[in-house]
Amino acid sequence: MKEIRAKIVASVEKLFGRKQFKALKDLLCTMEPVDIADVLSGKPPAERVFLFRLLPKDLAIDVFEFLEGTEREELLSSFTDAEAAAVIEEMSDDDRTALFDELPAKTVKKLLFHLSPEERKIANTLLNYPEDSAGHIMTTEFIDLDETLTASGALDTIRETASKKETIYTAFVVDEERRLKGTVRLEDIILASPDAPVSGLMDEHPVFTSTETDREEAAGTMSKYDLQAMPVLDREHRLVGILTFDDILDVVQEEATEDFERMAGISPVEESYMDAGVLTLTRKRFTWLLVCIVTQVFSSFILENYAFALESVVALAFFIPLLIDTGGNTGTQSATLVIRGLTTGELSGDDVKKVISKELVLGLLLGGTLGALAALRALTMGTGYGVVLTVGISVVAVVSLGNLVGSLMPFAARKFGIDPAIMSGPFITTVVDIIGLLVYFEVARRLLGLG
Amino acid sequence: MKEIRAKIVASVEKLFGRKQFKALKDLLCTMEPVDIADVLSGKPPAERVFLFRLLPKDLAIDVFEFLEGTEREELLSSFTDAEAAAVIEEMSDDDRTALFDELPAKTVKKLLFHLSPEERKIANTLLNYPEDSAGHIMTTEFIDLDETLTASGALDTIRETASKKETIYTAFVVDEERRLKGTVRLEDIILASPDAPVSGLMDEHPVFTSTETDREEAAGTMSKYDLQAMPVLDREHRLVGILTFDDILDVVQEEATEDFERMAGISPVEESYMDAGVLTLTRKRFTWLLVCIVTQVFSSFILENYAFALESVVALAFFIPLLIDTGGNTGTQSATLVIRGLTTGELSGDDVKKVISKELVLGLLLGGTLGALAALRALTMGTGYGVVLTVGISVVAVVSLGNLVGSLMPFAARKFGIDPAIMSGPFITTVVDIIGLLVYFEVARRLLGLG
Repeated sequence: MKEIRAKIVASVEKLFGRKQFKALKDLLCTMEPVDIADVLSGKPPAERVFLFRLLPKDLAIDVFEFLEGTEREELLSSFTDAEAAAVIEEMSDDDRTALFDELPAKTVKKLLFHLSPEERKIANTLLNYPEDSAGHIMTTEFIDLDETLTASGALDTIRETASKKETIYTAFVVDEERRLKGTVRLEDIILASPDAPVSGLMDEHPVFTSTETDREEAAGTMSKYDLQAMPVLDREHRLVGILTFDDILDVVQEEATEDFERMAGISPVEESYMDAGVLTLTRKRFTWLLVCIVTQVFSSFILENYAFALESVVALAFFIPLLIDTGGNTGTQSATLVIRGLTTGELSGDDVKKVISKELVLGLLLGGTLGALAALRALTMGTGYGVVLTVGISVVAVVSLGNLVGSLMPFAARKFGIDPAIMSGPFITTVVDIIGLLVYFEVARRLLGLG
Repeated sequence: MKEIRAKIVASVEKLFGRKQFKALKDLLCTMEPVDIADVLSGKPPAERVFLFRLLPKDLAIDVFEFLEGTEREELLSSFTDAEAAAVIEEMSDDDRTALFDELPAKTVKKLLFHLSPEERKIANTLLNYPEDSAGHIMTTEFIDLDETLTASGALDTIRETASKKETIYTAFVVDEERRLKGTVRLEDIILASPDAPVSGLMDEHPVFTSTETDREEAAGTMSKYDLQAMPVLDREHRLVGILTFDDILDVVQEEATEDFERMAGISPVEESYMDAGVLTLTRKRFTWLLVCIVTQVFSSFILENYAFALESVVALAFFIPLLIDTGGNTGTQSATLVIRGLTTGELSGDDVKKVISKELVLGLLLGGTLGALAALRALTMGTGYGVVLTVGISVVAVVSLGNLVGSLMPFAARKFGIDPAIMSGPFITTVVDIIGLLVYFEVARRLLGLG
């Protein structure tokens, strides 16, 4: 299928080059909005605006919703006020919230002014929800049905309003106070006899979320129950919006990327990598690297204290990298498995004892094998049995410790209400390093009779 | 909503404890299948079987599809042949494929024997597709419509077969050879006049994937186009199955978890963490740790070579952990950002030059700041200007190098057709360590006039 898409893109380029704009418009109208957005992304700003203006209004808005942050900002700034107003008025409200999140406050203020009072109210309501909440990413464009309707009445309502709705495959039954009574699938409405009351077709205990719920948790709920659409309720249990499956996919991907970055010690970067400036990226990565340096104060202090050991037996220095790396890597491995388990819901706080005991056993197995190999290496270097034993014992200790620390810290974080993914690689690595070095030199001191 | 679910679960426990099985069955019938599966998971095997048998057949099969691997195996082994046959015959075919993947080959053979010839053919066809392909995870339970149908004819077909289909919200129009002609949304069928030909309502250039396509790529395509369902075609372009949005969510989560594990140097673990035995986990983590040890041969070799420098100026040893950790962490940071960018499609192979230049600048900025701080630390320890300068320069070099190596290697992997996520933390760390140590000691040698 990539070849088909590639051919179409090549045709677009050809027609554009030949200024055959009528044919180009016709071709664009056969393309998927996201593919048109891809083509526009690759173009310089002036050409992008031109191509965008070729598109019929509805298609243009769909394409606009697929463009990236900076591209949308550029397009808006080259539009007339009337053009900009038309686009944002017609956008789906959840994509509009995402757009406003990306734009500078001044621009948002100006655009809000151009909205109709109705849309402005919706836009403001959504924007005011906390940024990582379900309320912030929901849409208000859902089908709500009165609880007294029959199947045929429901179908009429659906037919009349379908074009303005995010989805019609799940409909939401509400009372006069707009409180959620149940959800009903389009499938069931179609398969029912026309007189069947909708209240008899609906799920009276639907899965739902709240406006205040964290979006990652809401995504987890939708994913757990395989929901195509999920109602979002306010504090009075009124239906105020819905989340749909495509929102969830985006949330899952973004949250996974954030966790990846945290694990590597990067404060999550909001813009895409290519959009983010060098200074922003430096700042985001600097924090944890600074923590590294600060804790290195401890490691250099330890080594300074044991300088006498290094001066007596310089071979002790040969294995410091091995100790540092092995402890850090194994700690990161344990932490990764536990953090990922906690995030996907596979592990819960109750599992901590089982996990710790598993990790300790693993630590001894891995540490034992690696320690034996490291000791063997020391032996082949002719360092003498004292060093060989020291290296072997220390590796076992460091690996076991790494496992313990790496698996324990995410649970501890969760206990204190912090996101376990905060327990990053650099942090765990330095904790394990410090303890590992102490163990190494204390073992060396005793076995080699130093100091 | 968690409180509501918790209350229901408490009621289940209460009724079970009081042996009020009729009331318990009624309660279970009001619950979501995935919640019933959660309750069963927490129970010892004997009770689990008992509770499972309480459920009416259709609900039982839905619940079965939500249980974990080992639980399903246990249940099946406690069923009579007739019970087991009933469950697997009625299961949706894609969940059955997943089940067979988890079971030992002997059990699968036995179960296949119990299937009707029709279902056995489907089961075998799906099983034979490569394990990570779209074909392996697709379902054959889709609505196919003849291209000559009208909207009302289509609706009749849908009504008749809906109960056996994975989804009815997207229907697939095929010709007599079962080649895909287009896809049509239920929404459009409903909104059309009854006589409208389906061929006029359909998308004639639908987005599709192939049975051989990697499932992660297929998931990316569905995600990109926000598809609720996507057709899967064989080599002759015949429609053989579909993927639905809930499959994709699972794939995205599993692939993210695999990438996390690879980044930490763990060969992906197929079972869930709690199910995996200690020996399996050891083996999966051992591979990369072994690579660590092997490359440590080089680092200990380097240090042995520069033993003279360490003997002359023992303070050089104090900063080895700092160098090792900083280089490793920064390399992992760069690699994480690039790998994640390549995986989510945000970065492509063409971006390599832009990324490398960005990373080099970042390396110098970060390295410069960190190097200054490290040099300051060395100064406060009274190590003398030679060491201070050596530390400062080496940190700058190691951080820049770490960035370069960390960002370059995923691109290189992709170039050679390997998954960029293979470029794990341990691997990059050791490469950066080795080069970093060489730089450190060579700078030291010259600045301090050693050897």
